[in-house]
Formats: sequence, C-alpha cells, structure tokens
Amino acid sequence: MTKPKLNRKDLSEAAERFKNWGRWGPDDEIGTLNYTRPEDIVAAAQLVRKGKVISLGLNYDENGPQGAKSTYPSMGRINPLHTMLRTGTDAYSGVLDKRGIRAADDMVVIPLQCGTQWDGLGHVFYEDSMWNGYDCREVSSAGAQKCGIEKTKNKMVGRGVLLDIPRMKNVEVLENGYGITNEDLDQAARFHNVEIKRGDFVIVRTGQMETKLKEGNWDGYPGGDAPGFAFETLEWIQEKEIAAIASDTWGCEVRPNETEPGINQPWHWITIPIMGLTMGEIFYLGDLADDCADDGIYEFMFAAPALPITGAVGSPTNPLAIK
Amino acid sequence: MTKPKLNRKDLSEAAERFKNWGRWGPDDEIGTLNYTRPEDIVAAAQLVRKGKVISLGLNYDENGPQGAKSTYPSMGRINPLHTMLRTGTDAYSGVLDKRGIRAADDMVVIPLQCGTQWDGLGHVFYEDSMWNGYDCREVSSAGAQKCGIEKTKNKMVGRGVLLDIPRMKNVEVLENGYGITNEDLDQAARFHNVEIKRGDFVIVRTGQMETKLKEGNWDGYPGGDAPGFAFETLEWIQEKEIAAIASDTWGCEVRPNETEPGINQPWHWITIPIMGLTMGEIFYLGDLADDCADDGIYEFMFAAPALPITGAVGSPTNPLAIK
Amino acid sequence: MTKPKLNRKDLSEAAERFKNWGRWGPDDEIGTLNYTRPEDIVAAAQLVRKGKVISLGLNYDENGPQGAKSTYPSMGRINPLHTMLRTGTDAYSGVLDKRGIRAADDMVVIPLQCGTQWDGLGHVFYEDSMWNGYDCREVSSAGAQKCGIEKTKNKMVGRGVLLDIPRMKNVEVLENGYGITNEDLDQAARFHNVEIKRGDFVIVRTGQMETKLKEGNWDGYPGGDAPGFAFETLEWIQEKEIAAIASDTWGCEVRPNETEPGINQPWHWITIPIMGLTMGEIFYLGDLADDCADDGIYEFMFAAPALPITGAVGSPTNPLAIK
Amino acid sequence: MTKPKLNRKDLSEAAERFKNWGRWGPDDEIGTLNYTRPEDIVAAAQLVRKGKVISLGLNYDENGPQGAKSTYPSMGRINPLHTMLRTGTDAYSGVLDKRGIRAADDMVVIPLQCGTQWDGLGHVFYEDSMWNGYDCREVSSAGAQKCGIEKTKNKMVGRGVLLDIPRMKNVEVLENGYGITNEDLDQAARFHNVEIKRGDFVIVRTGQMETKLKEGNWDGYPGGDAPGFAFETLEWIQEKEIAAIASDTWGCEVRPNETEPGINQPWHWITIPIMGLTMGEIFYLGDLADDCADDGIYEFMFAAPALPITGAVGSPTNPLAIK
Repeated sequence: MTKPKLNRKDLSEAAERFKNWGRWGPDDEIGTLNYTRPEDIVAAAQLVRKGKVISLGLNYDENGPQGAKSTYPSMGRINPLHTMLRTGTDAYSGVLDKRGIRAADDMVVIPLQCGTQWDGLGHVFYEDSMWNGYDCREVSSAGAQKCGIEKTKNKMVGRGVLLDIPRMKNVEVLENGYGITNEDLDQAARFHNVEIKRGDFVIVRTGQMETKLKEGNWDGYPGGDAPGFAFETLEWIQEKEIAAIASDTWGCEVRPNETEPGINQPWHWITIPIMGLTMGEIFYLGDLADDCADDGIYEFMFAAPALPITGAVGSPTNPLAIK
Repeated sequence: MTKPKLNRKDLSEAAERFKNWGRWGPDDEIGTLNYTRPEDIVAAAQLVRKGKVISLGLNYDENGPQGAKSTYPSMGRINPLHTMLRTGTDAYSGVLDKRGIRAADDMVVIPLQCGTQWDGLGHVFYEDSMWNGYDCREVSSAGAQKCGIEKTKNKMVGRGVLLDIPRMKNVEVLENGYGITNEDLDQAARFHNVEIKRGDFVIVRTGQMETKLKEGNWDGYPGGDAPGFAFETLEWIQEKEIAAIASDTWGCEVRPNETEPGINQPWHWITIPIMGLTMGEIFYLGDLADDCADDGIYEFMFAAPALPITGAVGSPTNPLAIK
Repeated sequence: MTKPKLNRKDLSEAAERFKNWGRWGPDDEIGTLNYTRPEDIVAAAQLVRKGKVISLGLNYDENGPQGAKSTYPSMGRINPLHTMLRTGTDAYSGVLDKRGIRAADDMVVIPLQCGTQWDGLGHVFYEDSMWNGYDCREVSSAGAQKCGIEKTKNKMVGRGVLLDIPRMKNVEVLENGYGITNEDLDQAARFHNVEIKRGDFVIVRTGQMETKLKEGNWDGYPGGDAPGFAFETLEWIQEKEIAAIASDTWGCEVRPNETEPGINQPWHWITIPIMGLTMGEIFYLGDLADDCADDGIYEFMFAAPALPITGAVGSPTNPLAIK
Repeated sequence: MTKPKLNRKDLSEAAERFKNWGRWGPDDEIGTLNYTRPEDIVAAAQLVRKGKVISLGLNYDENGPQGAKSTYPSMGRINPLHTMLRTGTDAYSGVLDKRGIRAADDMVVIPLQCGTQWDGLGHVFYEDSMWNGYDCREVSSAGAQKCGIEKTKNKMVGRGVLLDIPRMKNVEVLENGYGITNEDLDQAARFHNVEIKRGDFVIVRTGQMETKLKEGNWDGYPGGDAPGFAFETLEWIQEKEIAAIASDTWGCEVRPNETEPGINQPWHWITIPIMGLTMGEIFYLGDLADDCADDGIYEFMFAAPALPITGAVGSPTNPLAIK
C-alpha cells in the first residue's frame, strides 16, 4: 500500500498546524533559534569533557559538490572560486619589495549555499510570506531586509546532539529515497542514550556524504535523490522545540519528495517560513560520527557561527562540535 | 630622546630570537595554535557562566572599512559584494513557481581579509620563507599548498581574554601612533584581574574601531595611522605562549611603524612567518568590552572558526566570546 | 521664467507619443537598432579613409568612476576587480613547470554598467513593461529572458556621428545641469557639416569626462549633477530615427533631472522601454573629438560590439570609431 | 614512419628562428598587430559589400565549454557567472519605486579566457621572458605591467580571411590530433580564391566547435584532443606577416601536441612570447563559414576589439566579420 502523495491542501494544513508566527513577537527575525536559552548554553559548555574540537565543515574548494551531474538546475551555485590577490611567488620574484612587506592576500567568489551552510530564514517563502509573516518582497535584489543571516550572529551556540541513523540501523548509509521518520529519530536517541531537549541543535547523519566522498564523485548529490527527513518529522521538530536541525545531505529532506508533481521540497515550505527553523545542509559528519561511536557520547557543545553577511539568506559555516 | 627606528638588522635579530620553526615538528602548519591543549579547552568551557554569546564580528557589507580614504593602496581589497541569485521579488512575481518552490539564494565576492578576519600563516613571508621554514613559493596563484587556513579548521577554540587598554588607561581610545607596550599588556591583565595563560586567545582593544563607527566614516582606518602593538610585544607574546592575538584595528600593530623607511609592518614580519602566530584583525570589541566592564570578568570561552577555504591565506570569521 | 517640472502625466503623454512597440513586430527585442540597414553599413564602411581606429573605451580598472563620492547609491556597481589565476611570477618561481607551459591567466568581476557600456533594452522599465510591451518580470534573477544584450551581437555596426557640443559652443565643458536641446544637436550637426541619417549611431560630447580625468577625481560623476540630454531630445531622436545614442557622462541625460521629486531619469523612462533605444554611457570621447576637430570630419564607421552575455541588461564595450 | 617528437632543443631553435623581439622597437607591447597599417584598414573597409555583420562570438553563459569533462585541469576557468543587481521582478514588486526609476542592473564573474577570447601577449612566457624580451615578472598578481590587453584597444581592426579547412577537404570536421599544415593553409587559400596579405587577421576553421554544439556536450573540448595548427605553421605565420590568428578550438594548436612528454602547447611557446602573435580561441565560425560558402567570398572587414581591462593577459571579445 503506497502512501498518497502530498498535495497543496496537505501543505496548507501543515502550514496552519506548525505556524510559529508571532510566537516570539511580531518583530522576530530568528525563529526557533530563540528556543536556546542562556541556561542551555551554560549546560552545553558542561559537555566539554575531552577538549576535542571536531569540524563539521567540508573544505570549500573546486572539489565541492557543485557542478556534479544533476537533473536539478544549479541556478548559479558553483563551487567556491578562490583566487589570489598577491602570492608567495610574487614575493619570491621580488615584485612586492617596494611595499616593504612580503605578503599574500586572497579572495573568494562563493555562493552562500554551495557547501556546508546554514539556510537562513530568508531562504524559503510560503506563498507571498516569509518567516513571521513578513512579505516575501523584503528579500529583493538588495538582499534580505528582514531575517538576514546577520541577525543570527550571536545565536549559533548551544547543545548539539548527533542522531546517527545508519549506525542505529546497522547500515553504512541510508538509501536514496528513504524518509527518516519520527520513530527513527526517537529510536536513534534511545540507541545513543541521549535525550532531545528544548533549544538543541540536532544533527542527523544519513551517511550519504561519506559515500560520495569515498566514491570521489558528487554526481547525483546536489538536488538528486537522497535519504532525508520525511514530511512527518515536522511534528517531531515542533514538539521537541529544537533550535535548528542539520544533516549531511544537499537538502535535508528526502528526495524524491513525498509530493505530487509541482511541489518541490515540501518540508522546506514549512520548516523555514512557517516554523522559523534554521537548517544546516552539507554538513560533514564522518569524524563526529566516529568519535561519538568511540566514546558513546552523542551530545556536545555546538558552535557554528554564520558569517554576518548583511541581508544574506544563507551562510557558509565551519560548524564545531566540542566534546 | 627618540627611540631609534628599527632597521633590517633589528628584524633579522628578532627573527633569530623568536623563531619557532621546528618547535612542533617539520610538518607543522598551524604554529602557535598548537599551544592550546585539550585541557585548556575543557577549562575554557568552564568559563561559560551566563550563557551569553557575544559576536566580535563586524557585519560584512558595503559599509565595511574597505574603500575608505587611505594612502595605503587597497590592492584588490574591496568591501564584500553580496548579490542575489534568486529573490523574494522573483517569488512574488511568480517566476519561480515552475520550480515548485519559492526560494531565494545568494552569493558573495569577498576578499578574505576585508573585514573581521584571521591572518593565516600563509599571509606573510620573511624573505623567501613562510612559517616553519616552508618556501614562500608554496603560496602561488593556485593558493597556499602549505599553511592554508583550512588546516586550522578544528583549532580556533580556547580561552579568550580581553585586554581593554583604553579602559585601563581611562581614555576612550588610544591615539594613532601609540605603541602598546609589554607593560601595558601586563598592567591591563592586572587591572582586569586576569592572568594570561599558555594557549590563550588574547584580544586587545584600542577603541579605534568604535571611534570610526561613531564617526560613521572609515577614512584613515585601512592602512592608516593607528594605535597598536609595539614591536617589543613580540617578547611578551613569545613568553606567554599564547595561541593567537587579535585587535580592533586594521593591522594589529602600531602605525606609523617603528621602522626605517622601506620596512612596512615589521611586527608582522616576525609574528606570522617566524613565530607561527595566527592573528585576528578588524574585530569588533565594543559589545564585549561593555560586557566585561559590567561583570568585571575578562576571560571567556572563545570560538572563532575560520572558513576552511582550501589554500586560503586568511579567512573571514564571526568570532564568538561565550561567557 | 522657469520651465515647469515634468510630472507623471508628462511622462505618460511622452510614453504614448514616442511608443515604438510593435514597429518591428511583436517579437522584436532590439528596437531602434533595426533602423540600421545593410546599405547603411556599406556606406559607413566607405567613411574609412585614413585607416585610423579610435577607441572610445575607458580602461576597466580600479581607477574607474565607481566608488567616487556621490549622493546616488552605487547599489553594487563597483569598479572592475581584475584578479590573476596564474602569473609570470608563478612562472619565474618554477611552480608552473609541472604543467609543461608557463602561462598566465586571469578573471574579472565586473558590473556590466560600471564603465564604458551599453544600456540594453532590459535595463529600464516603464511601469510593468519593458521594450515592445514585454512584461518586466521577463527580467528576473535568472537574467533577461527577453531583450538580453546577446540579441544585439550582430548589430552594433554602422555610421557614427560625433556632435561635439562644447566645441560648437566654444567652451571646454558644458555646465552641470545644462540640458542639451534639439536646437543644440541640430546646430552642432550644421557646425560640423554633417547630417544625421536614419540608422546612425549618434555620439554626443559634453566634455564632462575629460574634466574629471584632468582633475584626477571622479567625485560627483556617478549619479551626480551633469550636463546631458534634455527631455525634449526624445523628439529629435524619434524624428531622426537613429539606431543608438551615446555620451561621455554617467547617464546621458541632464542632472538634476527636469522632473518633480520622485521621478528619476525621466528620459530613460522613455528611451529604453518605450522607444527601444539602446544607449551608450561613460564613453571616452577626448581622442575622437580631437581627431574630428583636426580633420573636420565628424562621421565615421562605428563598431561597438556588446559582449553577448546571455540575459544581460547591459554590457561593457570597447567602441571603435574607424576613420 | 612517425615524425620524431619535438623536444626542448627544437623549441629553442624555433625560438631563435622566429624571434621578433625588437622588430618594432624595444618598447613595443603589441607585436604582430603592428603589421596592420592604416592602408590595410582602408582596404579592409572596401570589402564591406553586403552590409552584413556576422558575430564570431559564442554567448557567454553557463552553457559554455568550461566545466566539461577534461583531463586538463581547469585551474579556475569557470563558465561566466552572470548575476543580477536589480531586476524586473524587483520593479514589479514595487521595491524600486523609492528610487524614482524602475531599472535592472547586473554583473558578471568571468575568467577572461573562458569563452570566445583573445590571448594577449602577457599570456605565455618563454622561460623567464615574455614578448619583446620583457621579464615575465612583469605579470604579477597585480596584472600585466607590460603587454596588457588594454594596449591593443585601437588595434583589432583589419582584413579578415577565413580558411575553412574541412570544407576544402570536403569533410565535416577535422579529426582530433590532425595537425593543420602549411600546405593545408595555402591550399585552402587557393581553394577559396583568396590571398593572405601582410597584416591580415587569419581565421581558421576546424569544425570542432560546431560538432560539440551539435552534440550538446563540451566534454573533451577544453584541453582535450583537437585538430589544430601543426608546429610547422609557425613558419607560414612568420612568412605571411599576419596580424593575428584565430580558430574555433579551445587552444588553436593540435592536441595531442607534437612534443615529448613535459612540453605542453609548444606552438604557444613560440607564437606569443617569441613572435608577439595575438591569438583568438573558441571563435564560433559556423555562421561565417556558411556565409562564405554561399557567396564564395572569404575575405571581409574584421573588428574584434578586446575589452581594455588594464593589465589583463586575455580578453573576451565579440569578433565581427563585416561583409
């Protein structure tokens, strides 16, 4: 028996059900990041017991996932283009000496969602609205006048929890098209002996990225089929009152989507503009997963500051799990 | 009596005196960041008592310090140029609906040292050498083959200490050309009742940035005269075995420099390639300084991850002081 | 007696009066460029008598007009940022030899209207319409689906005529705020002994750019007060059936504009979307003006190809007058 | 019998034999472009008989040849990235009305040799020298201090001649690895009833690009195997005293190269730095070839201005054949 495909009416009902607009006042621009309270941050710091810092960031370079084969148009998302403004070869060649210092300098052209990144609350709209009911026209070519990523600059710190679904299921990687269920999330938490709390940063591993890295080929990763959150997880997320969620795939939610044709990324339609949920994508979870498996501890201090690029709807980040 | 200007012989002597090459083995690429040990990170986390996160990042936008009047050529350092790849106005206009999702996306063209940033160890050379004795030609147009900023991706966490020099001296801002001395640093630490320890991230306030922000004009900030570290602080830094140092000015060290003509940024000649010291510049310290003055506590957990841009010689960062 | 300021009703009447929509069929995307016929190009080639090529292009570099002081917001228009991908210093340093060739390579980040440039027909809208009545939403973040500059790739060749207004008036430069009249244009043509013909590329000198170059300072040039076309010249342009018009100022038309507050660049409201007139701005006319004054010949072959950047609403160009 | 592979000694001999250094004085920066005299330009204009303008430019967009599969590293050459600064959807959304004008604007990030382009004389070095004997260190991260493409801004006009080698050979396309010989060039000229003259811009068709366009796939085009000029054509080029040469392939010369391992693009080693020959690559020749076959006329006026980007070693161009 196949589950019926989600249609616009289902989305509309979900929008009504999960709407957090106004929950933090009419002027709020950061949504569920509000769930993390100072005492949660203090408690998160207490989780630092080994003094080990684990980066969840994929290096930004031409080997990133953009440009891989995909039926999904990339629409301008290229891999970062790093170029030098001055070099050590300039130094060696003597051409910098008139400056009185031998120094290199550089720049990058970087789509903000091309690699490990946060989806800001200006990233997705529900009809003509963005988070908290702001008009979607607040995000013009001049950038996001509301909900710009810079509003989160003091916010991306708290307790992190890893839910390693494939390890719990004793598989290497979840299959493409596998929708992670609420029960999977709860079961993983039990399996890892960890409890999800209000204000947590929940990081969910599918194993997909590591498979791609092992293969040395990103084909199919950007916008292709993937394991990921089932639509029903909206309920879990809402109930748990988590601050943010992240995963190791291109787009967090399961692909192919559970929807009728014409609706793309239905979970995003609700999480970002309706719930105000900040989301992390393309997180590298291999090292963290190994460490958690080793010590059996799946909670940690989490610090993943966005770059405060004014008016941005996303940001690259180097997320840190500190254990 | 005027102090004699530093010449190349002085620099050469300093290079011999402060050389840390080989201290962490011949293959090291992160220098003094090695000073921070796991136990220091555990201890730093214990400093989180209020659950307050304070960003030391200036927003990245067209109001940044680049493009201001300066006699120092900008050589390609522009303010970040943030452009949209898709917008809410596209969404409103209905042109995205064929995609089945209404989403905005964006990119940035950003010199890596145009705003709040880390100087990586590939940034400055001493003669033909970079940190740890690597050949400066390792930094070519293809980026830094050695000491790229991505090597620090697990490293920018530890104990932070703020030394608020103008507050200690009971002035609003240090004067341009004022060289912060070893005695200033020690005196500030005593004044703030804080002790500098091995592996610390030391953040030194001059007040210059806040003055510029108050004036609404960055003229003279990039490459202009500024208060900053005197050359003698190399000794203090070396002795304290700190992990990194940061300040609220364009270039950390005092300008005009204490050198004879033809030598620009002498302190940088030694800190980066000789000592292996990572440095933070253009840090916004106003909020942190106020908070420390309020609660009298000048130590905190510090997390300032660089973006792991492969081969980069610097990185924008959103540094967090967590108290 | 002051002329009354133009208001929206005046613009609306002008829009009705000068509307060329449909003149070249419902699918046209190049407007008045259609006026130039093959025989005009053949005739233009006959004007080449000295074999002299004169560039009307300002070099693209950090010394361009962007970034100058202006009350007009630059909205992302920066000077071109040219960066190297490989260099001769790399070559000298030996780091390229593994490739078997010593070669340099480079790139540029360039707003398409930051220097000498063509305004394409997707650049300005009248209410919700663009040239030929296309919906303005055809120009989304994905670029111009209609009237992209690439549609002109075979079109920017014909007879050029220089009208040197200050020389005719025996002044060095027209004053800021001076509106060039129809009579000025006719008088200049008579003075230069040249007749404007259907399909011509008319190039009008104000002298403003040369004054700025002489001063070594672009302050006030981008978006500031300037001499330029009076609103009445719409009539002259329409009657003459010219292919395109260009000038040496930032925005062709006189500034301050002749309009009531709230209407900016009224002449642009009509020329581009209503008449379908391609326009050249920031043309460097010093060398051409000198040459024409020398030989007394103000007509020439003109070739100023746009770069066929798909979906672009403007393009840098190196316009050539060939005499 | 196989021809022996070229080695460094062969290149060294060719360098001595074809060296044009000093031919146009010690300060020359444009090389063989000097061959075109004013009278040649006058004569070229006489070739305009139909008034037809044919662009040889490939549109610049994400469908360009970069990013295709290749064993040749792209080293930063991406397809152009065109992004909008303001849009018609902004206009429609009403967010621009505060400016008093509804206008779109845009920018591009473009490697200068990613599409139809000129190789400038700063592009390739012979050992430590560039054209005319300048030190290769003149091309640093600050750009080309000598032989920048902006030096050609008045120069890219003259007589163009198309040599359509596959049409002469009655094949659709030359095979990869086929080296076009001197005899091929002479035979094509005879076949087309055209004579190569001093100062000409010689455009040679292999058919490769059209094959790739027909296939809808650029794999193998950038840096892959290709038909192209044999090394021996250096002699032909030198003898004919042509201004410049262009073709429809990625790199003009035959690939695999005729050299021993370790020598890449040997023809480039000589043409650019030794002869001072400007070269066009990735020219789209389909329309021109058809037109020439139709009217039997293989000579035309040619205008292909480079963008005068200061210090650039190459430039995108929209080359025009005017018949």
